[in-house]
Amino acid sequence: MRMSFPFSAIVGQDEMKRALLIAAVDARIGGVMVFGDRGTGKSTAVRALAALLPPIDAGAAGYQDGTPRKGKVAVPFVDLPLGATEDRVVGALDLERALGAGVKAFEPGLLARANGGFLYIDEVNLLEDHIVDLLLDVAASGENVVEREGLSVRHPARFVLVGSGNPEEGELRPQLLDRFGLSVEVRTPQDLPQRVEILKRCDAFERTPEAFAESWAKAERRTVKRIAAGRAALPNVVVPDAVLAFASRLCMAVGADGLRGELTLMRSARALAAFDGVAVVSEAQIASVAPMALRHRLRRNVLDETGSTARIERALEDLAA
Amino acid sequence: MRMSFPFSAIVGQDEMKRALLIAAVDARIGGVMVFGDRGTGKSTAVRALAALLPPIDAGAAGYQDGTPRKGKVAVPFVDLPLGATEDRVVGALDLERALGAGVKAFEPGLLARANGGFLYIDEVNLLEDHIVDLLLDVAASGENVVEREGLSVRHPARFVLVGSGNPEEGELRPQLLDRFGLSVEVRTPQDLPQRVEILKRCDAFERTPEAFAESWAKAERRTVKRIAAGRAALPNVVVPDAVLAFASRLCMAVGADGLRGELTLMRSARALAAFDGVAVVSEAQIASVAPMALRHRLRRNVLDETGSTARIERALEDLAA
Amino acid sequence: MRMSFPFSAIVGQDEMKRALLIAAVDARIGGVMVFGDRGTGKSTAVRALAALLPPIDAGAAGYQDGTPRKGKVAVPFVDLPLGATEDRVVGALDLERALGAGVKAFEPGLLARANGGFLYIDEVNLLEDHIVDLLLDVAASGENVVEREGLSVRHPARFVLVGSGNPEEGELRPQLLDRFGLSVEVRTPQDLPQRVEILKRCDAFERTPEAFAESWAKAERRTVKRIAAGRAALPNVVVPDAVLAFASRLCMAVGADGLRGELTLMRSARALAAFDGVAVVSEAQIASVAPMALRHRLRRNVLDETGSTARIERALEDLAA
Amino acid sequence: MRMSFPFSAIVGQDEMKRALLIAAVDARIGGVMVFGDRGTGKSTAVRALAALLPPIDAGAAGYQDGTPRKGKVAVPFVDLPLGATEDRVVGALDLERALGAGVKAFEPGLLARANGGFLYIDEVNLLEDHIVDLLLDVAASGENVVEREGLSVRHPARFVLVGSGNPEEGELRPQLLDRFGLSVEVRTPQDLPQRVEILKRCDAFERTPEAFAESWAKAERRTVKRIAAGRAALPNVVVPDAVLAFASRLCMAVGADGLRGELTLMRSARALAAFDGVAVVSEAQIASVAPMALRHRLRRNVLDETGSTARIERALEDLAA
Amino acid sequence: MRMSFPFSAIVGQDEMKRALLIAAVDARIGGVMVFGDRGTGKSTAVRALAALLPPIDAGAAGYQDGTPRKGKVAVPFVDLPLGATEDRVVGALDLERALGAGVKAFEPGLLARANGGFLYIDEVNLLEDHIVDLLLDVAASGENVVEREGLSVRHPARFVLVGSGNPEEGELRPQLLDRFGLSVEVRTPQDLPQRVEILKRCDAFERTPEAFAESWAKAERRTVKRIAAGRAALPNVVVPDAVLAFASRLCMAVGADGLRGELTLMRSARALAAFDGVAVVSEAQIASVAPMALRHRLRRNVLDETGSTARIERALEDLAA
Amino acid sequence: MRMSFPFSAIVGQDEMKRALLIAAVDARIGGVMVFGDRGTGKSTAVRALAALLPPIDAGAAGYQDGTPRKGKVAVPFVDLPLGATEDRVVGALDLERALGAGVKAFEPGLLARANGGFLYIDEVNLLEDHIVDLLLDVAASGENVVEREGLSVRHPARFVLVGSGNPEEGELRPQLLDRFGLSVEVRTPQDLPQRVEILKRCDAFERTPEAFAESWAKAERRTVKRIAAGRAALPNVVVPDAVLAFASRLCMAVGADGLRGELTLMRSARALAAFDGVAVVSEAQIASVAPMALRHRLRRNVLDETGSTARIERALEDLAA
Repeated sequence: MRMSFPFSAIVGQDEMKRALLIAAVDARIGGVMVFGDRGTGKSTAVRALAALLPPIDAGAAGYQDGTPRKGKVAVPFVDLPLGATEDRVVGALDLERALGAGVKAFEPGLLARANGGFLYIDEVNLLEDHIVDLLLDVAASGENVVEREGLSVRHPARFVLVGSGNPEEGELRPQLLDRFGLSVEVRTPQDLPQRVEILKRCDAFERTPEAFAESWAKAERRTVKRIAAGRAALPNVVVPDAVLAFASRLCMAVGADGLRGELTLMRSARALAAFDGVAVVSEAQIASVAPMALRHRLRRNVLDETGSTARIERALEDLAA
Repeated sequence: MRMSFPFSAIVGQDEMKRALLIAAVDARIGGVMVFGDRGTGKSTAVRALAALLPPIDAGAAGYQDGTPRKGKVAVPFVDLPLGATEDRVVGALDLERALGAGVKAFEPGLLARANGGFLYIDEVNLLEDHIVDLLLDVAASGENVVEREGLSVRHPARFVLVGSGNPEEGELRPQLLDRFGLSVEVRTPQDLPQRVEILKRCDAFERTPEAFAESWAKAERRTVKRIAAGRAALPNVVVPDAVLAFASRLCMAVGADGLRGELTLMRSARALAAFDGVAVVSEAQIASVAPMALRHRLRRNVLDETGSTARIERALEDLAA
Repeated sequence: MRMSFPFSAIVGQDEMKRALLIAAVDARIGGVMVFGDRGTGKSTAVRALAALLPPIDAGAAGYQDGTPRKGKVAVPFVDLPLGATEDRVVGALDLERALGAGVKAFEPGLLARANGGFLYIDEVNLLEDHIVDLLLDVAASGENVVEREGLSVRHPARFVLVGSGNPEEGELRPQLLDRFGLSVEVRTPQDLPQRVEILKRCDAFERTPEAFAESWAKAERRTVKRIAAGRAALPNVVVPDAVLAFASRLCMAVGADGLRGELTLMRSARALAAFDGVAVVSEAQIASVAPMALRHRLRRNVLDETGSTARIERALEDLAA
Repeated sequence: MRMSFPFSAIVGQDEMKRALLIAAVDARIGGVMVFGDRGTGKSTAVRALAALLPPIDAGAAGYQDGTPRKGKVAVPFVDLPLGATEDRVVGALDLERALGAGVKAFEPGLLARANGGFLYIDEVNLLEDHIVDLLLDVAASGENVVEREGLSVRHPARFVLVGSGNPEEGELRPQLLDRFGLSVEVRTPQDLPQRVEILKRCDAFERTPEAFAESWAKAERRTVKRIAAGRAALPNVVVPDAVLAFASRLCMAVGADGLRGELTLMRSARALAAFDGVAVVSEAQIASVAPMALRHRLRRNVLDETGSTARIERALEDLAA
Repeated sequence: MRMSFPFSAIVGQDEMKRALLIAAVDARIGGVMVFGDRGTGKSTAVRALAALLPPIDAGAAGYQDGTPRKGKVAVPFVDLPLGATEDRVVGALDLERALGAGVKAFEPGLLARANGGFLYIDEVNLLEDHIVDLLLDVAASGENVVEREGLSVRHPARFVLVGSGNPEEGELRPQLLDRFGLSVEVRTPQDLPQRVEILKRCDAFERTPEAFAESWAKAERRTVKRIAAGRAALPNVVVPDAVLAFASRLCMAVGADGLRGELTLMRSARALAAFDGVAVVSEAQIASVAPMALRHRLRRNVLDETGSTARIERALEDLAA
Repeated sequence: MRMSFPFSAIVGQDEMKRALLIAAVDARIGGVMVFGDRGTGKSTAVRALAALLPPIDAGAAGYQDGTPRKGKVAVPFVDLPLGATEDRVVGALDLERALGAGVKAFEPGLLARANGGFLYIDEVNLLEDHIVDLLLDVAASGENVVEREGLSVRHPARFVLVGSGNPEEGELRPQLLDRFGLSVEVRTPQDLPQRVEILKRCDAFERTPEAFAESWAKAERRTVKRIAAGRAALPNVVVPDAVLAFASRLCMAVGADGLRGELTLMRSARALAAFDGVAVVSEAQIASVAPMALRHRLRRNVLDETGSTARIERALEDLAA
């Protein structure tokens, strides 16, 4: 197994890292969509977060055949291959056992393997719609229900779904986009020292991975602790009515369709507060997560050439004024 | 199994709720099509209505193999997955038994499972035409006739068909639309207190589902009683000839093709009257159901930019004048 | 089995009813194509005619395996499902017996089941061309010849083919249209009392089908008798040469391609005369069936915006002048 | 088996009948393509010619498995169904014997059945190119060579290929057209007495087929004799060099691509002479067959709107001048 | 087996015949592409050349299973059918032996059968690109390497590939065209005596093939001898540096991409010299083969409407000047 | 096996040769894409480099079933056929053993065979995207992970991926291009003596391959030594921070998306230095590899018609100024 690049050693890309940490604190937020340039470390960051998290109970990771398992295992990380068929994703009849022993056994798929961890889809815009739909359904319900080839299986499939895509290569249908909880934009950094720093870290990791990991171990442990503390605090974080109203006013101002926008604002602001050790959510947390919670839920406004992020930020200013 | 959001706790969306209740009183109305924005609780409402209804006789729910069953079971709710094949929908040869025991047995499909309950199709406009056609045929006749692979099976398949779709993502053929009994439009609410109320109810349900359900139990029981009373009263509700003529004049005024428009007006006005405890249908019930019975049966009028709902309401005013 | 709406209780739609009765008297006329609005009772009328006819000898209805059958059975009515494969239509190898007993047995298809009765195709314009072609071939020859999968079966398949379609949803190729004997147009009635009457009859039938059928039984028996008398008289009805010349002149005047137009005029005028108890066909019968025999055989005339029916009627007037 | 309409009773359509008779005298002419209006008796004429010919030796008709057969059988007539697969056309592995007895046996296809007779393809322009190509190859070589699924079979497949098509419904590629020996055009007759005569003959045949056939028996026998005499005389008919030069000059004048045009002119003029009892071919026979031999080999001349037939006739006049 | 038309009896078409003879002398030239009108004897010429060549050792003709074979057999001639699948071309698993004896045996394909002879593809522009690609690969390497279905077979497949096509019916990709060694253009002859001569020879061959073949036997033997002498002389024919430079200058003048142009010029000029008994290649041979070696390697020059052949000839003149 | 053309005997094409040598020194550079004219020796060069390298340990070449192998074998060279399926590329279930012995064994694919060597894809732009994607994934990770048909296999697949393509025949998606480490452009040489020299070398190789190879053996051994020395020196070559900054400034100046550009600049400059015996990388090596490392990562600039290479060179000049 390849060693992962340390999460803490990722230079810049703050919004992407924040969204991943929020999803790590509260998986119900429902998937993170990462838009942006190629070669900017999207897959590296998700893989790094999965590697960072402490081992989990074997019984809560992956799924094989329902037999209880003991001990601890690494947090699963599944990279969905382009061109994956529905069979490989949801699982299928185990043909070997069907032909050999004559029994209908279930052969778990990638959803089963991702249970308890992360499912990463690179270039999600190139996947067939019905597969994306299915993935979002399972991610939302935490359960994979298989009804095919005479099988009737239901197993847990709780995972953080992360998709990446380049808007220049084809878009997701608004219906699908809306079902991702958060979305972030990553850009090629334009700061020279930052770029050189990235080159040096990549080179160091490539040449002496163990030594490099060792030098970041302390920062990694700090992040792990904050995630654990955030998860524990989450049920007790309060969201006052005035803050909910602020979230709704913001959604109305930017014209988001439906109510998933403000539901996600509420959930992610609460998770961010929990991660930051804040007990009562304020407008500050709402504003902090607003771009990532709303950006992909805005309609194109042909008369207003401003980008989605700018429109959200302007609406925040107007509400503050 | 996930607990359902209480039907009575749904904020606003009155037309959708009224159409679902009418279909619950008289399933012969023939399916409800829900148009509108994403994230507005369409699937939640249908699921809630199914969960609300009292358990039914096991023999009238689903279908397995013709063996009589006893006891009570929950009202079935089937969510038709996008990309479902005809096999999975109508049922097919049970390959395991065919290969194993050498007998041609029938493996029931989703139509069998929906018997006695609800069949929900999200984004029905993305389904293949011949599947929609087949679903509407079965919904209309209450029976699934399977003639394939040497099987010849006929089983009851009585259910309320509910489809949802966003007109911006592709339209149904007029021929198919016409076969849905009712259609409703849902919009994102634009009233701030209402939106905050929705957020609070969703959050309460998400955090403490049992307590939330308990607080709505009384309202739920009230609705259940009204549906039961409506079903009982239905055969005795009278529709005077003058009211039929009013329905026909309305259909002629808006230029609906064929006669399914006024047949649906008659049936749904009667079901509404039954639900509301009214013994004789008047123009009031016709007017109340007119938009949902006719909206999807109007031709586009390129010279009149007014939407379908507005044209129906204007016609009602003209007739009243 | 669902009870059928009485044929005699159908309000209006005279041309469609006349065409169906002509086909009932002489099945060699070769199929009826029904164009027009949705929801106007097309399928109801065909189903009603089939239900109206008296039971026939079991040996002449359907086809199973060549074993002679005794007794009487209802006139078959087969509704060809959209998306039907060639296998299901013409019949195929019986896989169960092939795999089980190792014999090549024929599993009859829908054509076999329609033998002696009616085959109805809703939205025939959506069917694949080669299936329509095959249906018209079998309808014309009265025989289904199966040569596939090593089977070589030939069985009777005499039926009245009825297709329906909405010209707004796609057209049949002229080659296929030409092979239908008759075509009729149905429109939504625009007469208020007629529409109310339809509503009342539908409602009465829906609520108390037996009582409704009973009230129309006498009218039904009258129609049955006229069909039987017409069939008996048919071989003796005379078509004078002058009447044939009138038919040819009419076809030349409207510019119908080929000679199927006047062959159909001759046959359907004769069947109409037989049904009406007339011994010698006159120009009156030709004129009466001309629109339904020729309408679908006219070329589009881009310089003449008049519809096909109007052009036929004008030609009839010119010939009479 | 349905009785065929007598060939001699076909009214008009002289060019089509002449082309079929030429092909009956010399099958090496290579197929007849019939263009034209629907409903003009194309299929009737081909079927009639096949029925007219005297029974042939069983060993030269069809092909089953190479076992010599004795006695006489009717001249085969095969109607290639639209949508026929390559398997059904050329033959395939006999699956029953392969699975049962474990031997690779050949199950002959439609080409085998047509051996010694006629293969008719209605609407040849709707067939897939590679099937048409294959049919023309076999028609030209008189042999069906099957190399597939481990089979290696070679059997005689000598037949007259007749295709029909309506140029308005799609064209054949010039490469394929060129491989048909002759082509004829049929039009709806525009002469009233002729049309009435057709109606009367069709009606008489439909009502009393035996009597009708009897009344034409003598004319039929006359035609049979002429075909037999023509076949016998064919090897001795002389085509003088000057006549060959006339044929070449004609082809150059109309600009036919390649040399199949004059080869066909030579062969069909000789067959016509043989049928007519003429010992030496003259320019008269060339002129008589020129339209049918060349019409489908002309390029579209965008500057000359004259049809192919007219251009050939004009070239004949110029050469005669 | 049909007798072939004698190669020497082909009238005109000198360039095509020369290219085929060059390929017969040196098969490494890599395939001949024949462009041009239909019905000009393309397939006849290739078939004639194959029939002309003396029988070869059985061990070098075709390929079955690696068992050494003795004696002499005719030079193979394989006509690749349109619509041939990759399986039939390269060979595949022998299913009969796989299912029967349970062994993985190789069932050779058309490439195996063509070994030692000719592979002819009519209308190569209609074949799928990856099949053409595969054929050119095998033709270039002289070996068929099969790696599929668990088979790993490698057998000799040395043949002269000849393709024909009509540029009006679709073009080959430049990448594929470039891989054919030579290309020739055939046109319908426009000389009257020549055309009459062709007609007479075709007729004589068709009527008395043996007598016709006999009358050309001496000319055929002469050609066979020249081919054999050319093959023997080939390794000793010298191409001076100045002649190579002339070839390169010519390619640069006409702007051929890559170096396959001059490699082919060198090889085919040498083969022509060998066939003509010339020991040292001069500019004359280069000029003689230049059109056929370069014509298909020129880019379209939108500013220069001159055809490829004319551009090559002009470049030859310029170089000579 | 065919003998390869000696790498050292390739005339010109310096950039392509340099890129291949860099990839031979450090395979982590991630694939070489060769753009350019057909017939310019692309495949010859890659094949030559593979043949040049000394035999490697059998255990590190290819992959069969995990059994340790001993001795030395030639460096693998795999030529991916157009139209290769995913099965043939990644490996699949061994059907013979599955059906025979009833065990699920893995049948290695082309990736397994390429292990330790080169994988060449001609016309990579014609391959399906998901295959290219998969190849790049495996090339980047050095491991082939197979999860299909119930197999779960993981085997080493370390190879240098080389693709070729002609931009005129279709482009790769920018996402895929970006994942190739280097790209080079090859053009038809325009220097006469060079072209003649190529002709002579090709001819000499074709006629007497052994003698030709012998005459280049010394040059070949020299190159082999330099590669071996470069590989040994690589870990100790230093890239100063200022040189990294120069690489980043260059990428920013030309506007390459993401950071793969400068990572590749760093890696390939280091490999070039190692090959050239240079201990510390300077701007000279960066400049030398810049066109091949960045050319395929530039966006089209519609306002600047300059080609990619020219833009990179201009940026280098600006930075130097």
